[in-house]
Amino acid sequence: MAAITTISPLAPTRFPDLPAIAGLEAAIGRAGFYKHNRPDLLLMRMPAGTRAAGVFTTNAVGSAPTDWCKAALAANRGLARGLLVNAGCANSFTGDAGDAACKRALTEAGAAIGVEPREMLAASTGVIGVVLDDAKITRELPNLNLAPVDWPKAAAAIMTTDTFPKGAGAACEIAGVKVNIAGIAKGSGMIAPSMATMLAFVFTDAAISAPILKTLLRQETETSFNSITVDGDRSTNDCVLLYATGQANVPPISDAKDERLFAFRAALNQVLTDLAIQIVRDGEGATKLVKVSVEGAASDASAKIIARTICESPLVKTAIAGEDANWGRIVMAIGRADQPVKREMISVRFGDLCAARDGKVSPDYDEAAMSAYMKRPELEISVTVGPGAGRASMHTCDLTKRYVEINGDYRS
Amino acid sequence: MAAITTISPLAPTRFPDLPAIAGLEAAIGRAGFYKHNRPDLLLMRMPAGTRAAGVFTTNAVGSAPTDWCKAALAANRGLARGLLVNAGCANSFTGDAGDAACKRALTEAGAAIGVEPREMLAASTGVIGVVLDDAKITRELPNLNLAPVDWPKAAAAIMTTDTFPKGAGAACEIAGVKVNIAGIAKGSGMIAPSMATMLAFVFTDAAISAPILKTLLRQETETSFNSITVDGDRSTNDCVLLYATGQANVPPISDAKDERLFAFRAALNQVLTDLAIQIVRDGEGATKLVKVSVEGAASDASAKIIARTICESPLVKTAIAGEDANWGRIVMAIGRADQPVKREMISVRFGDLCAARDGKVSPDYDEAAMSAYMKRPELEISVTVGPGAGRASMHTCDLTKRYVEINGDYRS
Repeated sequence: MAAITTISPLAPTRFPDLPAIAGLEAAIGRAGFYKHNRPDLLLMRMPAGTRAAGVFTTNAVGSAPTDWCKAALAANRGLARGLLVNAGCANSFTGDAGDAACKRALTEAGAAIGVEPREMLAASTGVIGVVLDDAKITRELPNLNLAPVDWPKAAAAIMTTDTFPKGAGAACEIAGVKVNIAGIAKGSGMIAPSMATMLAFVFTDAAISAPILKTLLRQETETSFNSITVDGDRSTNDCVLLYATGQANVPPISDAKDERLFAFRAALNQVLTDLAIQIVRDGEGATKLVKVSVEGAASDASAKIIARTICESPLVKTAIAGEDANWGRIVMAIGRADQPVKREMISVRFGDLCAARDGKVSPDYDEAAMSAYMKRPELEISVTVGPGAGRASMHTCDLTKRYVEINGDYRS
Repeated sequence: MAAITTISPLAPTRFPDLPAIAGLEAAIGRAGFYKHNRPDLLLMRMPAGTRAAGVFTTNAVGSAPTDWCKAALAANRGLARGLLVNAGCANSFTGDAGDAACKRALTEAGAAIGVEPREMLAASTGVIGVVLDDAKITRELPNLNLAPVDWPKAAAAIMTTDTFPKGAGAACEIAGVKVNIAGIAKGSGMIAPSMATMLAFVFTDAAISAPILKTLLRQETETSFNSITVDGDRSTNDCVLLYATGQANVPPISDAKDERLFAFRAALNQVLTDLAIQIVRDGEGATKLVKVSVEGAASDASAKIIARTICESPLVKTAIAGEDANWGRIVMAIGRADQPVKREMISVRFGDLCAARDGKVSPDYDEAAMSAYMKRPELEISVTVGPGAGRASMHTCDLTKRYVEINGDYRS
């Protein structure tokens, strides 16, 4: 893989302080999936009674670890107490041999921390098509010592081409009881979520049942991880796992729509969105963070398709890399999204600057002001496409020579 | 726009010899849509009685010239005797002002060559969002002198970021009468046809009615222009126009399925496919020409979606640029196409070399042989995705730093 030479210019200044989630333990190791000396293994244990939910890639090829998680969560009704993550090998498209390697790794790792295999979840990221060499993991297990989670180190152990570790946390109340949420994520390329994207692990001390966890995670993923795109390529291994340890003494809640969950849902969305945007900030080769907002569409779903088409257009992305306010390409992308739009109502704005209005160039278009705006590292592009009430927004980054460089020699 | 510094390494060694189409005349001019000294105007006249058909972009934004052509062909039942093409300004997203400029330019140009405005067709290519400055064209009209077509010069006059002029020709018989087909095209970026892509003008001396021309053009466009992609971005101005002068004495044919048209249909497809592949050979920044073939899909349409997903994946395209046989990314792209596939039947071949078979890496995978193959300028990637009878193929090129460079400073 390409050497990680520089940290993304869009990286946050520091890793955030995450709230403590009572009862969580983690160990970091080096199984040796990479040539160079770096951690590539994360093993975690949660207290007995922890519930978990996951959302997984909709890529039809999938992977051994995502197949395992889906089956284990279903069979064990959301009871899960362990997590094993490796970077450097995706264990995707590896057939029965990959499934068996995944199971062996989880059995051995679970035994090392006193957790049944069926309560273990797995996530793998890295090269596709190589069977997980689980012996590398087994050999490292004696060196792993569980301790309270060191979030920056845990986040760093799951990175591949990422240039910085990603974390986010929030606190809120459920029925007057304070609960915490902490999460980590990885992702930099092959980012175009459909169900969830790349790897993210989120933890809360709230006591919430598995079905409700699943509902909340699905809903809040839609506007967070499912609203970012780096390159339009959807990974075979994407997954977001949400664990609730139940250590905070929340009264039982049986309905995901219960208003006592409103604050939790908002806090969860905040954490997921924060992590998702950090992934875009670490988009391979990215120099610009871009928020694209669409309004006036026939429906929210239609608005999202238009936003995604703009965000994934190579011509829009390269223009942004070149700091060129090439709004004609945004109009092109709106037109090729194959959604209902009204040409004579289309407008395009960069920040507060209007480039196009009512289906043609804006009468007060100011190239100098536009050029100055495009030099910013963070940009907002807002478009109106018609008279409808549908709206959506999506985050993306620019397409630079560095992206081509990183991905031209990934396996070498 | 970026200076054209080098000719594509995939360019044909020379412009082909095109057959003469009796009665065709053309003039080349310089209206001045570009700063540097180059022709940017093509005006053509066909004999009285010429029939024409067109296929146009499905981009919802469209452009003044494509709107004009659709309306004129419908109103005039396919009778068309003139063609005005300019490069450097797309006249797209320009509202009523753009429509009026297009009409004025056609009226003046038509008057200069004795053709009614309603028999004139127009095509424009270049920057989106700028109203056509038709005065530049009008000023140049006195300098234009019609003469028998000089195909290489005509093809060069319609180029934008193209690095070489594109032409193709064929001859065949209809009911024992020899007929000729000659065509030119332009295109290099914003190439992802849905109905037709970019500009192509094809001429035949056969006498064929407008409805049959339209049917043949639509059908043969599907496997030619609609089966290439450079960057997944579909232009607002794409159009393929087919003119039949009727100078070859073909008996009247009233059915597009008439077997006397079989040879003509094959010859037309040959010309359209040749032009389409030349466009990919001139893909912005391209160093590799790639043919992707898909078989075993649920239907031909499904196979085409899978082929397109592989061809438009930035990760597949950058790996090819890096001469990396990263077949895992091809598997990823198959999986994210959201089509019915059978994971355990997926295979991937590069030329005759098998990378993956039956859902996992091929037992005879040979990295050295694969690396040697990837150094070729022309590659064939073949995938099987399941037990179905659906198949399709598509041509694309790689994604290089030069693509980013060309499109980061297109307007500057």
